[in-house]
Parts: sequence; structure tokens; C-alpha cells
Amino acid sequence: MQVWKDYQAQHKDRFLNELLELLRIPSVSADSRHNEDTKNCAEAVKQRLVEAGADKVEVCPTAGHPIVYGEKIIDPKLPTVLVYGHYDVQPPDPLNLWDSPPFEPVIKDGKIFARGSADDKGQFYMHVKAFETMFNTNTLPCNVKFMIEGEEEVGSGNLGKFLSENKDRLKADVVLISDTAMISLDTPSLDTGLRGLAYMEVEVTGPNRDLHSGVYGGAVANPATILAKMIASLHDENNHITIPGFYDGVVELTDEERKALNSAPFDEADYKKDLGVDELWGEKGYSTFERTGTRPTCEVNGIWGGYTGEGAKTVLPSQAFAKISMRLVPGQDWEKISDLFAKHFVAIAPKSVRVKVTPHHGGAPYVTPTDSIAFKAASEAINATFGKQPIPVRGGGSIPIVALFEKILGLKTVLMGFGLDSDNLHSPNEKYGLDNYYKGIETIPYFHKYFAELSGK
Amino acid sequence: MQVWKDYQAQHKDRFLNELLELLRIPSVSADSRHNEDTKNCAEAVKQRLVEAGADKVEVCPTAGHPIVYGEKIIDPKLPTVLVYGHYDVQPPDPLNLWDSPPFEPVIKDGKIFARGSADDKGQFYMHVKAFETMFNTNTLPCNVKFMIEGEEEVGSGNLGKFLSENKDRLKADVVLISDTAMISLDTPSLDTGLRGLAYMEVEVTGPNRDLHSGVYGGAVANPATILAKMIASLHDENNHITIPGFYDGVVELTDEERKALNSAPFDEADYKKDLGVDELWGEKGYSTFERTGTRPTCEVNGIWGGYTGEGAKTVLPSQAFAKISMRLVPGQDWEKISDLFAKHFVAIAPKSVRVKVTPHHGGAPYVTPTDSIAFKAASEAINATFGKQPIPVRGGGSIPIVALFEKILGLKTVLMGFGLDSDNLHSPNEKYGLDNYYKGIETIPYFHKYFAELSGK
Repeated sequence: MQVWKDYQAQHKDRFLNELLELLRIPSVSADSRHNEDTKNCAEAVKQRLVEAGADKVEVCPTAGHPIVYGEKIIDPKLPTVLVYGHYDVQPPDPLNLWDSPPFEPVIKDGKIFARGSADDKGQFYMHVKAFETMFNTNTLPCNVKFMIEGEEEVGSGNLGKFLSENKDRLKADVVLISDTAMISLDTPSLDTGLRGLAYMEVEVTGPNRDLHSGVYGGAVANPATILAKMIASLHDENNHITIPGFYDGVVELTDEERKALNSAPFDEADYKKDLGVDELWGEKGYSTFERTGTRPTCEVNGIWGGYTGEGAKTVLPSQAFAKISMRLVPGQDWEKISDLFAKHFVAIAPKSVRVKVTPHHGGAPYVTPTDSIAFKAASEAINATFGKQPIPVRGGGSIPIVALFEKILGLKTVLMGFGLDSDNLHSPNEKYGLDNYYKGIETIPYFHKYFAELSGK
Repeated sequence: MQVWKDYQAQHKDRFLNELLELLRIPSVSADSRHNEDTKNCAEAVKQRLVEAGADKVEVCPTAGHPIVYGEKIIDPKLPTVLVYGHYDVQPPDPLNLWDSPPFEPVIKDGKIFARGSADDKGQFYMHVKAFETMFNTNTLPCNVKFMIEGEEEVGSGNLGKFLSENKDRLKADVVLISDTAMISLDTPSLDTGLRGLAYMEVEVTGPNRDLHSGVYGGAVANPATILAKMIASLHDENNHITIPGFYDGVVELTDEERKALNSAPFDEADYKKDLGVDELWGEKGYSTFERTGTRPTCEVNGIWGGYTGEGAKTVLPSQAFAKISMRLVPGQDWEKISDLFAKHFVAIAPKSVRVKVTPHHGGAPYVTPTDSIAFKAASEAINATFGKQPIPVRGGGSIPIVALFEKILGLKTVLMGFGLDSDNLHSPNEKYGLDNYYKGIETIPYFHKYFAELSGK
């Protein structure tokens, strides 16, 4: 609508500067040294919601990082959209690989480079600005509620309790989230599903102290070697995961679903070039889209043990460690998978070492219905601003709480992401396109408009 | 001899305090941040040699850390003993596992706890004090030369050049080294051989940046997983090393040699208890003594990649690294083995990653003759102070330059170590027994006495 276009054109620069300010706050939820920053970020989000026109804005404490809530109820009889996002970000390590400091946003080639620019500050803030647009132009077509949390990157451990204790306050007709990617601005897409997650940490202990590799080498099991053997055994020669029971209940796609999924444009040469790899890798019998969207995985996120400093140290380490996470698909229960992993990892350890497995966190996979009013509203909104219908795709990432919304609030979720896979989420030089940011702010009001109309309330 | 006993009893405390001062200098040769400390340590050693009575004492610069030289020529016609030792120490990491700071020596339960206490400051300094004893009591039976270097823990890269350029200055009849262990003070032993070493660093690179393990996981090779598979493949199910050609030329022991080696007292239950392991591990078909003394090994000394900080980061790392070293036995050439390893490690890498192998350093294995005058002198010296003949054993460690002495100076080496395997060499809480220290100082003069007598010069 012209009124939205005009308002947004007029406040374009402020919309950007406000985001840059948020990006300067290092709200790293995984690192307790940043607890104060995370708290300050929550306060900043609260302030922005108030300025945008939201009521009852509040920083709600939890056992971990707080959740920011705000709402605008224009008419209880109208449908209500619950917007979810997160203001916490991933750790920036390894810092030396950033071209500019992660918390000093830089705009280059039309992109904002900063940790959190795409995941998720840049994306949830589009909703704040879209809401401001509708509110200040008196065109808000429905009720809106905001729930912006601070623990998404560490598993949203305290959100379930918050949902259960605030069912009335969070009453809504749909959850709307922008925390995923589309194929490109030329080829808009909508996520129809997300993978679940089970994140584990393992500790392998051999001798009770680091040993001289000459005096003891050859006679005592080296925990780094044993850990390597254990990790190596988690995939077979076809890159199937070997944990007993891991695939039980996994829902295979129908031929139609596979066909639809693989119909999305994909250029393997470009994909490899962008990643700098000569050859792709993955489970035998599946395409790249299927491997990242519809199949479970088991990845080493980190591994360490022994001497990792400068030069040489001839030590036989006492311990070796790894962070290992599994992406899960419909049919898999993350708690059951965590148990299966722990049992298996202990079972395959030789008697010469001791193994400890600690589950970090997890979340259930989710598939969203494509025949719902909300999904149609999202498709039409994208069509209205992109000029074409979005392609339905399966996202490989995980937003553990999407399943919680359904379980606790009984709400379906629409995943309307405006990022790109190449935004370097969780990586150095994370970026978010200015066009993606503005296009999101432009598109979101149409979702509210169509959702209200289609709801016919 | 009584005169030695009296002198040493009189100066007992000073002998100890001087060692403690040396131990307070963090001469970590592998860490360039300690270059100044290493230099200061060399100067301190020089000062001590001068005080002990040595002539022509000099800190000789090299391309790396300096070598301290000193000598006492009482009569060119008498035999000359070249004492070798090293004043550099291993890095103290992991610091958090030390009960007391590594460079603030503490005496507890009759042992000196400090990095370098046994390897090798405590052991080479016994020779300085033994020399002082003989010199100040006018009982020096032969000429003595000292060569104390500062790069033993990083492969003695500059010593070969020094030997070649100082052949005359280093002219001697035998090399005497205390940098190894004996079974115990009740069961003295003499090393008859040392293993060689080939130390490598490997780097496995997958994608050109850390990736989101959800967005890309399952479709791109994870370098940490690939590195684990490559390391796992280095040993087969019998713990034989799988590198093609690795065992070529390895000299197998005769049945007699195996019998003699395994005749040394060994209590597997105590050994496991000391290490805190339920089960030993090693190459099928060999005893623990054989595994550590006579068989080559391949050990992971360090491994790292991805996110190793607090909490969880769902990253698919761009790179993974490992430090891997091989202990070598007679018949193996460390440079050839380094090449074989590098070729093999590159060869087994899948096309989905790139592999870089960097050799750190190495050294040849060594077997010392047991029928030489020098070995007899060492045996008799131990017999004189311990009251029993030492058991000949094969040491598992490496002193790369022992082979260099033979090659460049044409000298055989006697390995008269007074440490214990349980001294935590290269580990936290390294220690050296006060009894071992004083027993060494007491025993060494007898070596010079008997060596001079048996040489009959």
C-alpha cells in the first residue's frame, strides 16, 4: 500500500541506524562473560518496542536470559499474530577470521556485516519496524504480540516454562517467525519445515595425567586416538549414521515431495564454488536439498585435546573432548536420540578409557502445513512485494521452540525468513543484505493484512 | 670415596638451592614468548659452570636458543668425558592441572615439584655438582667438557651445525648424558637404547569458512569428522600402524633380547594403578616393555578444531588440526618416515577436503653397546653407590642428538639416567626425587674414576 511505502521511504535511514545500534551490543548467550551485554540488549529491545507503539512492554526474567514481551490489542475480536524472535547471538569465534570486528557493524556491497545481522536481530527487527509502519499509519489490521527471547542460540531452555506460565498473555491465532533463509531475492521461498537438534558434549579420559609419549607411548590408550576412532565409527561408508535406532520412525518423503523439493533451482557448481570445496559430501542416495532439509545428521561442532599451542609437545594426553550435534527430522524425538547417542557412545568405548556424555540441549523437528490460512497469507504477502509466489522448501536449521508453540500454545508457526544461506550464520563475517532487510519490512505488513482478511473475523 | 661423601654432605643444601633457582626460570623453548627467559637460563648455567671450576665457559649463540659450553682439561693425555644436557623445558600446559605453579618449585614428600625438575635441569645439574665435588677435592680423574643446550624439547635443530663447526673443541672419548629414567632406586637400570622421533602437524580444510551446521550439515564434509576418520585409520584392529612402508627395516629383537628385556621386574597391576587405567593398550603380540622400548608408535599429541569454548555452537568447522608424532626404532630413518607419513596422510584424504602436512622435527633411534668401557664404568659406578649392578633396559623416549654424536663426532653415548618413569615428564606436576638428585651427584664421580681407570690412559 502506498501509505506504507511512503512511511518506510521517509524513515529508511532511521530503520537502519536503529538496527546497527542493536548489533553493537554483544549479546552472546552462550558466554557468561556477556551476561551484562545480554541484559542490556533486552532493555534496548524493550525501549524499541515502546517507541514503535507497543503496550505492556516488559522485560520478563527467567532462570537464564530474559524474554522481552510487548503487544498491541486493537480489537479482541480481530485475529492475533504472535511474533517470535531472539536478540541473543552466536559466539563470534574464531575472531581472527572476521574482516571487521563482529560487534562493530560495517556496511559493504549493500550488506550489513556483524554478528547477529541475519540471525536474528536484523530479522526480528523487521517486524518491529513493520509494526511501527502499520501503527503510525493507522492501518494495523489485527492484533500483534511480540515475544523476543535471549536464549535461542543455547537451546531456549527456559522458554517452555514461560509459555506454560503465560498461556493467556500469549493467546494468538498464529506464530510468525523470521529466522530462516529464502533461496534468493529473485527466487523467494518459504520454509515448510525445520530440523530438530540434539547437542552433546563428550569427554574421553585415558591415563590420570598427561604422559610422556616416549616413556608410555605404545602401551597406554591415547584418548585422542580413541575419540577419533569413536567419531569415525559414527558414519558408515555410505555416510549413514551408525547409532542403533537412530533412524527409527524417520519419515521418508513421498516421490511427489522429493520431486517438489528438488524442483527448486540449484547450481552445484556455484554451491561448491561459494564454499570452496571440490566435492560435496553426504548420505548416499539423497540430493543436497534432501541431505540438508529432510535427513538427520551427526556433526562434530568442536574437538580438542592434548597440546594445541605453538611448537611441539610430545605428550600422550589424559583427555580428549568433542561437541557433537545431531539435526533431526520428523519422526525423531530429540530426548530419545540424546539417550541413544549417549548409550551408544559409552558402549563403543574400549575398556582402556572412560567416557562421559553430557547432553547440552535439543529441540524437536517441525513441519508446517502449507494449506493453512497463515501459510497462504505469507505466500500472498511475498507475491505482493516480490511479484512471484514463493517456493516451499525444507530448512536445515533448527528453531527448537517451534514445536513447543504447538505443544504448549496449540499454535502453528509460519516461517517467513528473508535471509540467505550465504549470510554466514554462526560463522565469521555474518552479513544481512540491506535489500533483504527493507524487503522484509515492506512484506510483513501484507502478511498481517492478508491473514486478517483470510481469517474473515 | 670418603672425601666426596664429606664434601657433598657439607654442601648438600646449597646443591639443592642452586637447582631450585634454575627451576624458577621458565625456559620453555617451544614458546617464543619465553625467549628472554631461555636466554637468562643459559646465562645462569654459564655462571654455575664458572663457579664449579670450569674454564672457557661460553654462551654460544645459534640460529635458535644458545648452547652453553665449558671445560676442564687437567691433562690432554687423560681421557675426556663430554657431558651433554639441556636447560630448556617442555611447556607447562595444561596449567590448571598443576597442584603448585610449574616455575615455583615446591618440595613435598621428598620430591621437587617443578617443570624441568627431572627433564633435564635436575639431571644435568647433578653433573655440575659432581664436577665441583671432584674439582674442589682435587680428585678429578679425567678431563671434562660440558655442552648444555636449549632446544632439546623442540628437536635440537641447531645442534648438528654446532657439532660440525666445533669438532675440535668437542673432542672427547665418550658422551655422558643423564636425561632418562631408571626402574627405581631399589632396582637401578641403564638405558641401552632410545627411540627416534618424527613429529608432524596436520591441517585438514573443508569449506572456506565455518558453516551453520543446520543449513549445510549433511551436504558438506566436516573436516573434524574427516580428520577423525584419517587418524582412526592409522592403526588397524591389532594396533599395527597402517602407513605403507612404516615397518620396513625395523629390527626385531632376538628371543634372547626379548627374554632379557622382559626379565626386568614389572607389576602390571601397579602400572595400571599408577596411571589410573583399567586396561593397557598396544600392539598385539608385544609386552609393555617391548611396546615402549622396542616398537615404533604413532600418537596424537594434540587435536583441535571448531568451537571449543563454553556452551554450544552449532558450527560445521572450516578446519581441523592435529599434532601427531611417531616414535621410531633401529632400522627406521626419521626423515623417510616423515615422508611416508606425509604421503600417506595426503593420499587417504577424500576429495572433499584439502590436507596440509608440516613436519616439525625428528631424530634417529639409537642403541648403545653394552660391552664398552664406558658402559662398564657406568655399571660399576652404579654398583658402587647402589650396591647392585644395573639392569639394561630400552628407553622409550628420544634424545635425537645421541645419533648425531655418533655421526658427527664419532662418539658413543652412555645414558646414565637417575629419574623415574613416574616423574611426570612433559606432564603437570613434574617431579624429581631428592634422593635421586643426591644419588646422582654421588654416583657420577665414580663414573669418571672407573672410566679413567678402565681407559688405562
